[in-house]
Amino acid sequence: MAQQSTTPVERFDAVDVIHTKRDGGRLSDDQIDWVIDAYTRGVVAEEQMAALAMAIFLRGMERDEIVRWTQAMIASGERMDFSAALSRPTSDKHSTGGVGDKITLPLAPLVASFGVAVPQLSGRGLGHTGGTLDKLEAIPGWRADLTNEEMIAQLESVGAVICAAGSGLAPADKKLYALRDVTGTVEAIPLIASSIMSKKIAEGTDALVLDVKTGAGAFMRDEKDARELAATMVQLGKDAGVNTVALLTDMSAPLGLTVGNALEVRESVEVLAGGGPKDVVELTVALAREMLAAAGKTDVDVEAALADGRAMDTWKAMISAQGGDPDAELPVAKHTQEVCAEADGVVTGLDAMKVGVAGWRLGAGRSRPGEAVQAGAGVELMKTIGDEVRAGDVVAVLHTDTPERFDRSVESIDGAWTIEKDGASAGERTIVLDRIS
Amino acid sequence: MAQQSTTPVERFDAVDVIHTKRDGGRLSDDQIDWVIDAYTRGVVAEEQMAALAMAIFLRGMERDEIVRWTQAMIASGERMDFSAALSRPTSDKHSTGGVGDKITLPLAPLVASFGVAVPQLSGRGLGHTGGTLDKLEAIPGWRADLTNEEMIAQLESVGAVICAAGSGLAPADKKLYALRDVTGTVEAIPLIASSIMSKKIAEGTDALVLDVKTGAGAFMRDEKDARELAATMVQLGKDAGVNTVALLTDMSAPLGLTVGNALEVRESVEVLAGGGPKDVVELTVALAREMLAAAGKTDVDVEAALADGRAMDTWKAMISAQGGDPDAELPVAKHTQEVCAEADGVVTGLDAMKVGVAGWRLGAGRSRPGEAVQAGAGVELMKTIGDEVRAGDVVAVLHTDTPERFDRSVESIDGAWTIEKDGASAGERTIVLDRIS
Repeated sequence: MAQQSTTPVERFDAVDVIHTKRDGGRLSDDQIDWVIDAYTRGVVAEEQMAALAMAIFLRGMERDEIVRWTQAMIASGERMDFSAALSRPTSDKHSTGGVGDKITLPLAPLVASFGVAVPQLSGRGLGHTGGTLDKLEAIPGWRADLTNEEMIAQLESVGAVICAAGSGLAPADKKLYALRDVTGTVEAIPLIASSIMSKKIAEGTDALVLDVKTGAGAFMRDEKDARELAATMVQLGKDAGVNTVALLTDMSAPLGLTVGNALEVRESVEVLAGGGPKDVVELTVALAREMLAAAGKTDVDVEAALADGRAMDTWKAMISAQGGDPDAELPVAKHTQEVCAEADGVVTGLDAMKVGVAGWRLGAGRSRPGEAVQAGAGVELMKTIGDEVRAGDVVAVLHTDTPERFDRSVESIDGAWTIEKDGASAGERTIVLDRIS
Repeated sequence: MAQQSTTPVERFDAVDVIHTKRDGGRLSDDQIDWVIDAYTRGVVAEEQMAALAMAIFLRGMERDEIVRWTQAMIASGERMDFSAALSRPTSDKHSTGGVGDKITLPLAPLVASFGVAVPQLSGRGLGHTGGTLDKLEAIPGWRADLTNEEMIAQLESVGAVICAAGSGLAPADKKLYALRDVTGTVEAIPLIASSIMSKKIAEGTDALVLDVKTGAGAFMRDEKDARELAATMVQLGKDAGVNTVALLTDMSAPLGLTVGNALEVRESVEVLAGGGPKDVVELTVALAREMLAAAGKTDVDVEAALADGRAMDTWKAMISAQGGDPDAELPVAKHTQEVCAEADGVVTGLDAMKVGVAGWRLGAGRSRPGEAVQAGAGVELMKTIGDEVRAGDVVAVLHTDTPERFDRSVESIDGAWTIEKDGASAGERTIVLDRIS
């Protein structure tokens, strides 16, 4: 019988655990603890976890089951404790990811400029959404890998750090995340919530603000699903003693006017200099207010720190502390190609997914973990929602070092703009849709 | 994006195929053809097929989807054609497996004695149900591995062959079967039906009789599920031009009075000699009639061939043709232990699963593919349904070469007998519950 196929020292058998969830049951606390631990040890095989992940996807998990699953993922690795190590309060932020989402870049130094420590353990991009580390690596000299000691020291001196997550935090999540990516089990709310929150809780932040995206460019396209994900994560955070709040934000269109690594750094620096696109500024300020409030700082003038250069000073200190030259020229792609409008009217829609895939195909993103990305590649949007256009107007400029990529990129971006003759009704785009706490 | 993670020469991406089924859709014919072929080639990874198998388990498949899946599994390997190679008609039988199910042993020579060719491509046991090849290997000298040419020659000369399925038939099924076993996806009707039928259709038999078991010792415990499985397989067979019929049979209690390799050979020989337990004879005769009728032979006296030694002659020829000595002494286990009744009354129930697991723990079965089994090990039932017992009566004798196995075996068989004071109402056990054609 299958349940005898593991060695007798194991407390449970993977097939029994899979059967429980497959048949719609609740996994016991002991089953959850065992399966996460045994998967981390390699006793539960990848194909077994894949079957379990699909069963979780289709059968769901109860709230307290997700709590236990998250705890087990935390227990699979080391824990940090920023509150004990730092003299300032910490406030962290996590975004579920979107096209042109460079918010971390201006946000971390902006919040830090008010004396709150902002630890941003980030990842590299896979697929149509870029990675924060890929973006910063466009800055000459900047390095993503810090030791825990370096990170703590930088948080204490500069206040903000954006670096690669160490392999010690929630190693079970690292394995499971890679597995879900290839087995069609990414979009399961219990698995997303536990993946994000296990890392955030393990790092030991005091406060956490979640940016949960919905719309065409988000991986939770449906608003109802995004709301449920947000509520689940807020609850997980609160249960673990982390002051957690979520903003539900619009990802139907790209954020800002750039998609691509160096292009997004440039736009972020514009925001830090007091300019930049309206939507990027709006979301940066909204998230900064939440992060500061969660750390006990209400009644602060966030916009002033962008206008008077305080946020920019912290940005420069943060980049320099990690070996980067904040005043260096950013890389520029060798080739560009224009995309033109085919009709007259007003832009009433801009499909974030099509733009994201176009940028990825230009070389800004990667198809496989470990692949190199092009620093200069990406999409520069010349026309976005609300803009008037005439047929023949340039609506975007595509950038790449490898011009053979243009064709497939154009194919992807084709039809991204919805242009209506009578588009006056489009109105203002609302970025922050709701607040969940 | 994940869907770009395979090389561009592939027609589909595994993640897209998984998403289709996960979200409740029907896999297209092209998706099915591709995923089975790519899995066989190793392009679709085990963890991807595991997630797909779980999605199929929970979402199901439409009838024509199962047909296509089965065709794709057939196309993954070679096809044989008995009808072209043989002068006699062929009639095959498949059982979904049960405890004490030794029916193939008397059945194949019995049917062959009427001039019908019976090809039985069998497997080894895993878990609580024994394997036909394990049973026959208890006969000194007998060998399971034949070339296709040897098999055809034996079918032409003797009429019956029981041998190992070559690796060339439905290799996709071979991989998928092993995967399902460790990922909790065994009991999915579409996957069971396509697994069985792909091999049977690929071997090219004219007629096929299915013995679909239901009850505690079957893996389709629920009668409704067993009926659906039977109907699905009959349809698959007919669609492929194989004259197919299914009997729904009872597996709540073991078949016959022996469970174990040499023990079951001994009981089979009793049946071939015109004796043997009533239930084994009843099912053997019922299946033989169906197999003969499906091959165009109605109006034959099946019982006579058991009574007058014709079936026994074919058995001896069949065993000899594969190197076995049909008159040799069968192996006997070195140790025995008795199990006694704890109450007076009539046996109204005998749990097939408990007896099967007891036999397996005595050494008759294996925990892992490739493990050796004990020829002499197993359970000899002294009291079965309908028998009167008194407390202290021996109800079973356990056999093993390794007496340290007794304890766990006794633990498993404990409570297998239901003994009722007023058990007269038990009545006759019905083996054949229904016929589905």
